[in-house]
Amino acid sequence: MALVGNLEPPYYAVIFTSIRTNQAEEEYQELNDYISNLAVQQPGFLGMESARNNIGVTAVYWRDLESIQAWRANAEHAAAKKIGREKFYEAFHTRICKVEREYGWTKPKE
Amino acid sequence: MALVGNLEPPYYAVIFTSIRTNQAEEEYQELNDYISNLAVQQPGFLGMESARNNIGVTAVYWRDLESIQAWRANAEHAAAKKIGREKFYEAFHTRICKVEREYGWTKPKE
Repeated sequence: MALVGNLEPPYYAVIFTSIRTNQAEEEYQELNDYISNLAVQQPGFLGMESARNNIGVTAVYWRDLESIQAWRANAEHAAAKKIGREKFYEAFHTRICKVEREYGWTKPKE
Repeated sequence: MALVGNLEPPYYAVIFTSIRTNQAEEEYQELNDYISNLAVQQPGFLGMESARNNIGVTAVYWRDLESIQAWRANAEHAAAKKIGREKFYEAFHTRICKVEREYGWTKPKE
């Protein structure tokens, strides 16, 4: 996974943090991949950065609040969230944020 | 690490994403712990959530922009960022975001 750079504020970030149950790892990965691929195809999707060890921290970037609302209303996404609550997660937290500024750095080639 | 919940928007999130070099893992962990403990003691610090596997994704929550600016001006933090660019990171990206809404979920006890 690469970093997401070169976006132009203002835009939105959804920060999703979670604690997994220790159940159903393979099923979780499959559904996660499926839903991530679906998100990428949504209008207004700008990028996603995600990591997990003790907890999972995912940032998904969207053009505007309307794009986030449309994704929230997506039926397959809603069904996946229901399965998430039933099987995959002990807890999660979602934050809707307006990105105001950003900057990046890449190591210069030697 | 637990999730950070129960904060009251509006407040700020700094999303820091990074790719590590494959150098100096022990030194990286030590400096990371030292700087994280320093951040926790800053005025306006509200919480931190962090994970790393292929990339690192860290969200640090702050009361306001002034708190973020004060942390950026901290001399030990600035010195750590210099070492980060020299040794620890191939690339990183920082986003300053205003958290507008949030909600959480915890699995009910059975």
